[in-house]
Amino acid sequence: MSSSLALRWREDRLELLDQRRLPAEEVWLQCTDAAATAAAIRALVVRGAPAIGVTAAYGLALAAAADPADAALEAAAATLRGARPTAVNLAWAVDRTLAASLAAPREARADAALDEARRIHAEDEAACAAMASHGADLLGGGGPVEVVTHCNTGALATAGSGTALGVVAELHRRGRLTRLWACETRPVMQGSRLTAWEAVRLGLPATLVADTAAGSVFQHRPVAAVVLGADRIAADGATANKVGTYTLAVLAARHRVPFVVVAPTSTVDLAVPDGAAIPIEQRAADEVRQVAGVATAPPEVEVYNPAFDVTPPELIAAIVTERGVARPPFGPALAGLLGE
Amino acid sequence: MSSSLALRWREDRLELLDQRRLPAEEVWLQCTDAAATAAAIRALVVRGAPAIGVTAAYGLALAAAADPADAALEAAAATLRGARPTAVNLAWAVDRTLAASLAAPREARADAALDEARRIHAEDEAACAAMASHGADLLGGGGPVEVVTHCNTGALATAGSGTALGVVAELHRRGRLTRLWACETRPVMQGSRLTAWEAVRLGLPATLVADTAAGSVFQHRPVAAVVLGADRIAADGATANKVGTYTLAVLAARHRVPFVVVAPTSTVDLAVPDGAAIPIEQRAADEVRQVAGVATAPPEVEVYNPAFDVTPPELIAAIVTERGVARPPFGPALAGLLGE
Repeated sequence: MSSSLALRWREDRLELLDQRRLPAEEVWLQCTDAAATAAAIRALVVRGAPAIGVTAAYGLALAAAADPADAALEAAAATLRGARPTAVNLAWAVDRTLAASLAAPREARADAALDEARRIHAEDEAACAAMASHGADLLGGGGPVEVVTHCNTGALATAGSGTALGVVAELHRRGRLTRLWACETRPVMQGSRLTAWEAVRLGLPATLVADTAAGSVFQHRPVAAVVLGADRIAADGATANKVGTYTLAVLAARHRVPFVVVAPTSTVDLAVPDGAAIPIEQRAADEVRQVAGVATAPPEVEVYNPAFDVTPPELIAAIVTERGVARPPFGPALAGLLGE
Repeated sequence: MSSSLALRWREDRLELLDQRRLPAEEVWLQCTDAAATAAAIRALVVRGAPAIGVTAAYGLALAAAADPADAALEAAAATLRGARPTAVNLAWAVDRTLAASLAAPREARADAALDEARRIHAEDEAACAAMASHGADLLGGGGPVEVVTHCNTGALATAGSGTALGVVAELHRRGRLTRLWACETRPVMQGSRLTAWEAVRLGLPATLVADTAAGSVFQHRPVAAVVLGADRIAADGATANKVGTYTLAVLAARHRVPFVVVAPTSTVDLAVPDGAAIPIEQRAADEVRQVAGVATAPPEVEVYNPAFDVTPPELIAAIVTERGVARPPFGPALAGLLGE
């Protein structure tokens, strides 16, 4: 079927739910070539490390259908890989689809690329289900819990039910969720626009807070865990994720609350030894100077707008993957899960 | 002259710069009675603990001019005191102006109230100058520094040059400021709208960041101090200030950066023993669900929106007042500064 909340394949084209327009309206954007797919990823029509991986795989399938020559495929792959620098699933999914396509005879390359994209899509769905189960076992074993999350890690961020938000939804299904505290996640507000929207759809007991109020939540509520996703996990467990993640990890450490990362093994990059080696995307100043197109700061003020930050492994209690839960020390634990 | 960036007295009325409309436009709102003054404080036309104290004092002068009877003055004082619950300067300034007015013969009460309001205004200006000097001595003694701030604590928040931002401006005048990192301060965005606006006016080397990016600043920049204001300081030094302050204190502690509060002694409330006893204002959910009137979250999602949080004394390195610098243990230090 190859469809999910964030994206769907329709005959000969890729359709993306335009997440920039949520929660106000649900509009599907058509992509008929790799360049448009890369542009959509860059513009945040679709976001979330697993979802952009699957999207880019379909983008390469569009390229293979248009021109299966080696040079054309490799150029399309480079464009897609370059759309965003931090999430490693993007390059991983593109490389996998490219290899599958190039391995086929020329006339079969389009089908081979599409088959591989569908396989990555199906694997992500299955991985989400497995992460939800492992994560809910980990967090919900002792009774109902309140959890804090950041950004959006649900069905909109993956091709399945989500990473961290998939765990939260599974806790809710098991009757083990008393409250989800969702941080709004400035500047792009994935928490307000996307996580709150998913929470309402799923009927979760959820409360939205400004990012500034997270400390007050830790001070006044019995938070059992922080659960969030990852864009790239280094070999030592250092985790790049949406900017603001590190702050939540520091708050969690002060309040002795476990900080739990939920991400598929495709997010782990054993080629990157530690957090310092993860490339961090810098985004436009107007994301901070404006909200929803309305100026909230003087146009001449300087801005620092990193899209991600890196949380060091010593602040992380567990990394939940589809293959099981890694615990410190993460170096051997992650290598073991990846079978290396 | 009785004028400042935030407010001015003109013959028989109070004029307030409408800070809700900054930085887009500079519009002055006229207040001709105490009820309108209280409404303006409640609506955040004017904000900042010292500025709302001075504003409320002028509001009581308006009441005394309209009707100098005891009951009328006491009713106006109650309305003004009730406008916002957390900043103690508000009640302090109202009580002082009320006492001065009631002590005068009936026909002189209007003049007595206005004189007292002007005295509080002038004292706040002088206190700002003294805090700027003490704070710059404390922070700039070792060479140029980068500092982080939150909310707005400048000329817009006081009747003078500011509390924490006054210190930063003084560091700049002394050639001791290499960078001011200003957090945007959701949900009301006093950092983006007001601090960035003041920084541009003053020519400060300033960079605006989303609140989520503060952790990344601590990770990557040589931050010498966090400097911010206070709405109420308990007898033990616990400090209520704009929501998000506690998070910055926790980040500062992890990075071994001094966390410095700058506030006039009128902010210290020795009647409140500790942070748990400070009343915290809860504000409307739509401040979080919307930005500048644009919906950023589904209307049905629940919201937790405290205007302030409390930083415990063990996270505070120093409290800079107009009478000098208090250091831990704050109990005796604050009592000493207040002469009790």
